Amino acid sequence: MTEPGVASSDATNIQASIVRQGDEYVINGRKWWCSGAGDPRCKVAVFMGRTDTDRTDTEKTDRSALHKQQSMVLVPMDSDGLKIERMLTVFGYDHAPHGHGEITFENVRVPVSNMLLGEGRGFEIAQGRLGPGRIHHGMRCIGVAERALETMCKRVQARVAFGKPLAEQGTLRADIARSRMEIEQARLLTLKAAYMMDTVGNKKARAEIAMIKVVAPNACLRVLDRAIQAHGGAGVSQDTFLAGAWANVRTLRLADGPDEVHTEAIAKLELRKWSLP
Amino acid sequence: MTEPGVASSDATNIQASIVRQGDEYVINGRKWWCSGAGDPRCKVAVFMGRTDTDRTDTEKTDRSALHKQQSMVLVPMDSDGLKIERMLTVFGYDHAPHGHGEITFENVRVPVSNMLLGEGRGFEIAQGRLGPGRIHHGMRCIGVAERALETMCKRVQARVAFGKPLAEQGTLRADIARSRMEIEQARLLTLKAAYMMDTVGNKKARAEIAMIKVVAPNACLRVLDRAIQAHGGAGVSQDTFLAGAWANVRTLRLADGPDEVHTEAIAKLELRKWSLP
Amino acid sequence: MTEPGVASSDATNIQASIVRQGDEYVINGRKWWCSGAGDPRCKVAVFMGRTDTDRTDTEKTDRSALHKQQSMVLVPMDSDGLKIERMLTVFGYDHAPHGHGEITFENVRVPVSNMLLGEGRGFEIAQGRLGPGRIHHGMRCIGVAERALETMCKRVQARVAFGKPLAEQGTLRADIARSRMEIEQARLLTLKAAYMMDTVGNKKARAEIAMIKVVAPNACLRVLDRAIQAHGGAGVSQDTFLAGAWANVRTLRLADGPDEVHTEAIAKLELRKWSLP
Amino acid sequence: MTEPGVASSDATNIQASIVRQGDEYVINGRKWWCSGAGDPRCKVAVFMGRTDTDRTDTEKTDRSALHKQQSMVLVPMDSDGLKIERMLTVFGYDHAPHGHGEITFENVRVPVSNMLLGEGRGFEIAQGRLGPGRIHHGMRCIGVAERALETMCKRVQARVAFGKPLAEQGTLRADIARSRMEIEQARLLTLKAAYMMDTVGNKKARAEIAMIKVVAPNACLRVLDRAIQAHGGAGVSQDTFLAGAWANVRTLRLADGPDEVHTEAIAKLELRKWSLP
Repeated sequence: MTEPGVASSDATNIQASIVRQGDEYVINGRKWWCSGAGDPRCKVAVFMGRTDTDRTDTEKTDRSALHKQQSMVLVPMDSDGLKIERMLTVFGYDHAPHGHGEITFENVRVPVSNMLLGEGRGFEIAQGRLGPGRIHHGMRCIGVAERALETMCKRVQARVAFGKPLAEQGTLRADIARSRMEIEQARLLTLKAAYMMDTVGNKKARAEIAMIKVVAPNACLRVLDRAIQAHGGAGVSQDTFLAGAWANVRTLRLADGPDEVHTEAIAKLELRKWSLP
Repeated sequence: MTEPGVASSDATNIQASIVRQGDEYVINGRKWWCSGAGDPRCKVAVFMGRTDTDRTDTEKTDRSALHKQQSMVLVPMDSDGLKIERMLTVFGYDHAPHGHGEITFENVRVPVSNMLLGEGRGFEIAQGRLGPGRIHHGMRCIGVAERALETMCKRVQARVAFGKPLAEQGTLRADIARSRMEIEQARLLTLKAAYMMDTVGNKKARAEIAMIKVVAPNACLRVLDRAIQAHGGAGVSQDTFLAGAWANVRTLRLADGPDEVHTEAIAKLELRKWSLP
Repeated sequence: MTEPGVASSDATNIQASIVRQGDEYVINGRKWWCSGAGDPRCKVAVFMGRTDTDRTDTEKTDRSALHKQQSMVLVPMDSDGLKIERMLTVFGYDHAPHGHGEITFENVRVPVSNMLLGEGRGFEIAQGRLGPGRIHHGMRCIGVAERALETMCKRVQARVAFGKPLAEQGTLRADIARSRMEIEQARLLTLKAAYMMDTVGNKKARAEIAMIKVVAPNACLRVLDRAIQAHGGAGVSQDTFLAGAWANVRTLRLADGPDEVHTEAIAKLELRKWSLP
Repeated sequence: MTEPGVASSDATNIQASIVRQGDEYVINGRKWWCSGAGDPRCKVAVFMGRTDTDRTDTEKTDRSALHKQQSMVLVPMDSDGLKIERMLTVFGYDHAPHGHGEITFENVRVPVSNMLLGEGRGFEIAQGRLGPGRIHHGMRCIGVAERALETMCKRVQARVAFGKPLAEQGTLRADIARSRMEIEQARLLTLKAAYMMDTVGNKKARAEIAMIKVVAPNACLRVLDRAIQAHGGAGVSQDTFLAGAWANVRTLRLADGPDEVHTEAIAKLELRKWSLP
């Protein structure tokens, strides 16, 4: 979905095109953050682009129509015209072999049968995935944060400075307590969102899904940062999982919509509760 | 329990004395934050003091013994030697008629039958009350925060500045979303603590009780502060409940143990989970 | 200037009217936060209102014209039609005898000679005062914060809990260090703004003036809050200056423009530095 | 100076030994974060270790004596017994060719003439370097933060989402304003510290040096994080300097003493101002 040229936080910005010619679709565009593209086992890409490319700007003001312009199609990685331009790094990590690719598509042709679900249903597919995807990010963040806190607690009890274990330093103890409070709250909010998705559905749970998408990565980053600080040089190096985890979790404040977009969604739903007659 | 002369966050600091003479206890000491003392309907005080007053300092190192030095006794408000020295204010509020009194007890005599539960059981009584007391503070904070957020949402939709409702200002929308996220998390943590108190008991729930004692007032204060800011001058005045609520909730970061004491308790329990062999 | 009915953060909202009739101005409107109105020595009010009341909405889009609609006129407090409706509280403080009044003006008549500087020059007068006014708030905040930090440092060295002075608690030490770092930075920013006002003038210094208007009260409130926390019950009561100072300084995040308005002004100036060709 | 085995925030923990044998010193120990060790042009290491290795623990309580146990000696990188065990990463960056090495010294022999200044003067040398070193970190942080803010301001004016430039989003504008306020304050504090070092000397300036060591990296990290957020995927990748700068600056909260150590130093100096008679 993501393109380097436009703000993909607004998916209607997508510029890549999927044009039907006879029994084929002709695909053009530039995508990045194609995760897994670096892995030799990766054989097929799911490509999102605009099938409805001739709308006028006036029609563009109709947002519901805007959300029917996009389609998803399967593209074999060995197609002519598909080129992995480069692999992207995340705070210095290349995540090889998996990796994150920037890929250009130049007049790539695929059979019409590669269309997923049907033309104009790209958003529908994306939305179906993103709800569960977002809460799964939250769940992973809780696990990472728990592991970081455990690592921190063991470290500060084993390490001595100024004549006593780091664990006796009041500020580190407060860091540990704050981390526990933040993890506990983020976990409960994640569980509530999951319960609502199961019982009342993704649509009714969208405020809670948006909340954990913002809360969990931010809480996890604070816990990781405190653990890194308690580890000194080891915390920023390859000797602990902390630095790598921090880099990964930092991307979750951007992936599947930046904090700002989800925060705005929460505000809109809250204000609607108290809208004026 | 609270005395102006010592840090009451450490209840073993209590200096007031309860000395038996024949069939009476002779009570001496200075207490403050005696809530309700200003109300003419207040007829009896529950007084906490040291019955075991002759311990040596060496014995003091034994903390479990220290927690058997205190007792609670009932003292009629009209007793000779009991004097309300003054009423205390909370950020300018006197909370009359209820009020918070500073009271001196000078050779006040009560029958031995006024002793609650038995000599040396003051802590036992206090602990029995403080667990439920702490979560009840959390519950009230959630309610206050919900009310503040509702008030804020209505205000920003009704008020216009720079050609549009305040509700269209991005930073105010972010304040609203943050408030909702903080309330949701604090509520779930309060509910979890309450559930544990009901199912596994106050002792097993002490980490969760300590957490909500810290989390709920702080979250509530942030929500109140954002609502005050959105109300301008009305927010700090008598025209909304916000300023008064802020003052009350601010005391909850001190009452029944300051944030620092509960944070330390959480840290101790967390570190114990990962203590070294 | 301030009116209860409109968001005065946008001064073009002012609704009060000043209409010339012969040799008199007829004044109507409702004002609040008229500080000092409660003091018997207060004899004259400076009233801001619209002299140019017949503009059409289309003309309103011209903001420079909007800033010539307002005028300031002197109104004796004993004028017929001037009524102090009530005094406002700040948190629980009434600030008597000085006080903050809500005042109605109903067909109050003053001679045309009471007009300050000339019709339509109200903004000009206000702006001339607000620059210096804002930095003076900053200066007062630095002084209050210094006094709070001194009080806190003395308290924590005098007070014992859990067998040692509070001053040996790591989190309180961190609070003290943070307070010193914040005070030092806010002071230097205030001094820079003052120096620029003296050397290059209020207009060139408007970014710095806006910055200290936001930075100084917020830093001061954080320092006061930490000092209050270190004082326990004494911190929220009349026994220290802390609670009263907190309430006063809290109003400075609203008075002379809320944080949000000054933050927006800083952003606009910063973005302009890097505007696209 | 830094060793993986001990908390080097307390330099008295250093375990590496420098033992005189005739005209040579025999050097043993394990060091890491030896920056530049990866560069083929690196020919000489400055090694810090204990020359006074036979102190008893009782003597260890005398801290001034403890600070005379350490010495610095020059060690050619091609010495027998010196081995670069590995290069360390900072988040995912290896900083090649410069790099950060972990080096073991096993019975490395150097002539006594390689001793710097004299036995027991290691701390003296370290302190002489660290004052200037710390402020130079502050200066670099200001520069990095300014560059990040410029990059962010250009980005948000060039990028469009939801029908308008990101620069019109209130929360991003607030991020920009906050960044300017934090940079301005950190710069002024750095300049004050530098001025004091020039005029009254490093010793009198130690509070200010400690303050900028804490303030500047933390402010810079907040500015970088906001800029990263405004850049989306580009912010965490190799397409901007932001991710790499973030990783570097993050190490400055640990290098030359972690935040906690400098914060404690500031607290100690502040409390001393107000110590009780």
